[in-house]
Amino acid sequence: MIEYGDNVLILLEDEETKYFSEVKKGGILKTHFGNLIMDSLVGKEFGERINLGLRDAYLIKPSMIDGVFSLKRSTQIVYPKDMAFILLTLDIKPGDVVYEAGTGTGVMTSVFSRQVGESGKVISYEKRSDFLEKAKKNVRRLGFIERVTFVAGEIAECEIRESADAFFLDVPEPSASLETSITILKGSGRICVICPTVNQVQETIGILRSLGIIDIQVWEIMARNYKTNPERFRPEDRMVGHTTYLVFGIKAEGRKFNVKRESP
Amino acid sequence: MIEYGDNVLILLEDEETKYFSEVKKGGILKTHFGNLIMDSLVGKEFGERINLGLRDAYLIKPSMIDGVFSLKRSTQIVYPKDMAFILLTLDIKPGDVVYEAGTGTGVMTSVFSRQVGESGKVISYEKRSDFLEKAKKNVRRLGFIERVTFVAGEIAECEIRESADAFFLDVPEPSASLETSITILKGSGRICVICPTVNQVQETIGILRSLGIIDIQVWEIMARNYKTNPERFRPEDRMVGHTTYLVFGIKAEGRKFNVKRESP
Amino acid sequence: MIEYGDNVLILLEDEETKYFSEVKKGGILKTHFGNLIMDSLVGKEFGERINLGLRDAYLIKPSMIDGVFSLKRSTQIVYPKDMAFILLTLDIKPGDVVYEAGTGTGVMTSVFSRQVGESGKVISYEKRSDFLEKAKKNVRRLGFIERVTFVAGEIAECEIRESADAFFLDVPEPSASLETSITILKGSGRICVICPTVNQVQETIGILRSLGIIDIQVWEIMARNYKTNPERFRPEDRMVGHTTYLVFGIKAEGRKFNVKRESP
Amino acid sequence: MIEYGDNVLILLEDEETKYFSEVKKGGILKTHFGNLIMDSLVGKEFGERINLGLRDAYLIKPSMIDGVFSLKRSTQIVYPKDMAFILLTLDIKPGDVVYEAGTGTGVMTSVFSRQVGESGKVISYEKRSDFLEKAKKNVRRLGFIERVTFVAGEIAECEIRESADAFFLDVPEPSASLETSITILKGSGRICVICPTVNQVQETIGILRSLGIIDIQVWEIMARNYKTNPERFRPEDRMVGHTTYLVFGIKAEGRKFNVKRESP
Repeated sequence: MIEYGDNVLILLEDEETKYFSEVKKGGILKTHFGNLIMDSLVGKEFGERINLGLRDAYLIKPSMIDGVFSLKRSTQIVYPKDMAFILLTLDIKPGDVVYEAGTGTGVMTSVFSRQVGESGKVISYEKRSDFLEKAKKNVRRLGFIERVTFVAGEIAECEIRESADAFFLDVPEPSASLETSITILKGSGRICVICPTVNQVQETIGILRSLGIIDIQVWEIMARNYKTNPERFRPEDRMVGHTTYLVFGIKAEGRKFNVKRESP
Repeated sequence: MIEYGDNVLILLEDEETKYFSEVKKGGILKTHFGNLIMDSLVGKEFGERINLGLRDAYLIKPSMIDGVFSLKRSTQIVYPKDMAFILLTLDIKPGDVVYEAGTGTGVMTSVFSRQVGESGKVISYEKRSDFLEKAKKNVRRLGFIERVTFVAGEIAECEIRESADAFFLDVPEPSASLETSITILKGSGRICVICPTVNQVQETIGILRSLGIIDIQVWEIMARNYKTNPERFRPEDRMVGHTTYLVFGIKAEGRKFNVKRESP
Repeated sequence: MIEYGDNVLILLEDEETKYFSEVKKGGILKTHFGNLIMDSLVGKEFGERINLGLRDAYLIKPSMIDGVFSLKRSTQIVYPKDMAFILLTLDIKPGDVVYEAGTGTGVMTSVFSRQVGESGKVISYEKRSDFLEKAKKNVRRLGFIERVTFVAGEIAECEIRESADAFFLDVPEPSASLETSITILKGSGRICVICPTVNQVQETIGILRSLGIIDIQVWEIMARNYKTNPERFRPEDRMVGHTTYLVFGIKAEGRKFNVKRESP
Repeated sequence: MIEYGDNVLILLEDEETKYFSEVKKGGILKTHFGNLIMDSLVGKEFGERINLGLRDAYLIKPSMIDGVFSLKRSTQIVYPKDMAFILLTLDIKPGDVVYEAGTGTGVMTSVFSRQVGESGKVISYEKRSDFLEKAKKNVRRLGFIERVTFVAGEIAECEIRESADAFFLDVPEPSASLETSITILKGSGRICVICPTVNQVQETIGILRSLGIIDIQVWEIMARNYKTNPERFRPEDRMVGHTTYLVFGIKAEGRKFNVKRESP
């Protein structure tokens, strides 16, 4: 049952137009299809169909994805296809300590925060104070502000040591921050580096290997969406061709051999 | 620090060969490269390099993926690329009640169990009792047995109503189980149907739509893995071409229009 | 050396804007960047750089692709990625007799015409007379009109028998035309059916198999284009997600077994 | 009607096993399923079904692809998906002069030779004399030997100037041969460089741009093959993940600006 304080996704019957809103006392959601008195939602069930005036709509319990897509963005955000793969491959779980640089819009900050649960912690570095302020608002809006420590500055100046279960590096020039990032990782901790260009991947692999990182993997995730008419089933005409390469690795000690042998 | 009862992934220095093992008192891990006295690992740190006799190896804290890949399989298992996208799109979170049919090897059972946390619950249906027994062992081994209720039988005979935040349907003939699956979902609950063939997708879309499911989406996830030599950077020569289509939807009430309009 | 009657592609120095034009006596090409007196091109070499007034441009000898993309379209045209694969898989070569239905814009008509050479022949069916008239102009413009026989009407009413080395079927409802298409093929002749939807593929496979067609293959061609900055190398952000499935087969006699065995 | 001298593809009824053979007087094709007296094929029609003793088989007129796949290989050969795209994008047509380095197995030599027709010409460089001898046999076997000039040596030592309509560069280190290759091209001629690794692509783009090459394009072609059971339609489980990147460009004179502007 919907209560004050809940977030609700209002999905129009066309299944395209969406509004993300908190159910606040006296709140009004203005849409092209009529105004919605938010108080009227209290007591209704998620899944119900309501009328906005000119159109019907569904009351949907917003997912994490719905939440982050409702945020005001200051930067390019990580796509769901990549977000999902990062969460699983970094193996983020309740109780984990996750470091992140940079905070950007606060999307991954929020996603990690939910994943680490109440017993976990996210420490997020961002050198641009304007981004940081907006990100704090975003994370607060999604309800995870108490799990996050925001730090204004470069990760490279961070002094904490060996405390991260996972490190997520998403900055314009990852190579400069790799050494500090690795230092912060616990033994066997996992890193993910966002590399939009191949050149960044090549440089990142080289540095990670020189730092003793093992099990280096580079992935590219492609998600194809299909039209849902079962009589004329086929993929969408256009798709996302590229977002980023994902570079992963695990911190280990005493690595002897730095290059994988490969037949010429 | 590694303790008795921990699971450890022993990753050889070739970064290919892996052994997944529990640190048991008096345990011995037999490998082609020497026997490992498991007691000797107690007190070591994850990330350390050890010697197996003929080869060095790393002590890695196993991820969920490492865990499920170490299980004895009775069925085809969901690939990580799909697993990640399912978890995020179904929006599984701490406290959720997740239904699943069928249990199969218990891989997704385990993955969901970790994700719902201690306050959540997974109810898993499997009609083949031999699969169910093996799956129970697998889920126990990964430490999540207390969060799971196993049910021997068809989901279609299930009598519980409106209690699932999410439903994961992975059975040979999904169409026969869709109506019950939807009934079990709470309003605004999310379903994912595994459909290896297009024919199953077409049938599933039709049934979901007739049952009033909204926001139906069909996705295909492709993951490309790259060779990690930065001097000769390129994708692997072979890749997985197909695992399954993923069909998602949200339960809602009172849907009026059953077919999305599409230009001819 | 450029002569009267040649086609020229004028490619602006931005390498994006293109003009396709015939070098006609007294002709003028009007562009946003100045007017080009076509006579002034006579005697110049392909590859030369000229000035249009406000911008420089290159004189390029147009490729087949440049030619067909310069045509006025009455229908969706086949993409180069698919066109190339069709030409090779149908094994079109000098001297071949190629049947086609429908003509559409005349793009594949032109492509096949060039490929069969002076000793070959293309017979193209189109039931819409408005399409046919425009297609004739297009094929004439590209210089292949003498190799093509245009037929106004449905391929299903065609009376010629066993004369095609290859058949290219690109009509809205291919299933109705498959039997005639196969009849027209010589023994060992090859067919390609354009099927934008999976449903058409499924139906087409069934009919082809019942008609004794062997070596049935279904392909989907994906072409990824990369940004060409070597310092920031990466794929384009957006790509074509789907054009069509391509179904191929070979005509043979006396087929006994109609369905490939497949493990369940 | 099949005659002496024809090549025939014997395709077993399982539609998997293939034999490529010339119909020679007194020839015998030995197979696991019986011996085939080649004289017995004379007078039969392509497309007919014959009996090999233990199995039936079809007589198929071999395509270019069938031909090149029957060759003895000394090197990795270009895949059909790439071959098709190269032929179309290089715009090879009757009468063209095509240069190639290196010859390798002679596959592209043969493909280009068929495409340029009787009035065209292929000049193929190969520094390894053992490859060259085998390639000559291959090209002769496919019937195109008279259209090809084979040169033993490096393309970089070539002295011919400005005579190629198209250049195909497929050597282990393309960067060393790019300048000569471009010199050989006519104005507005087209080049294709085979680059299996990204590093080669990056280097190739830089050199091509410094040499004034315009319209540089980098493509990656992915071909997905589907299982052809219409009741269980889906892609093959495994696919080719990577063969090569294809770099294309056009020779032009007097290029002023060497780098495409790109927003940061």
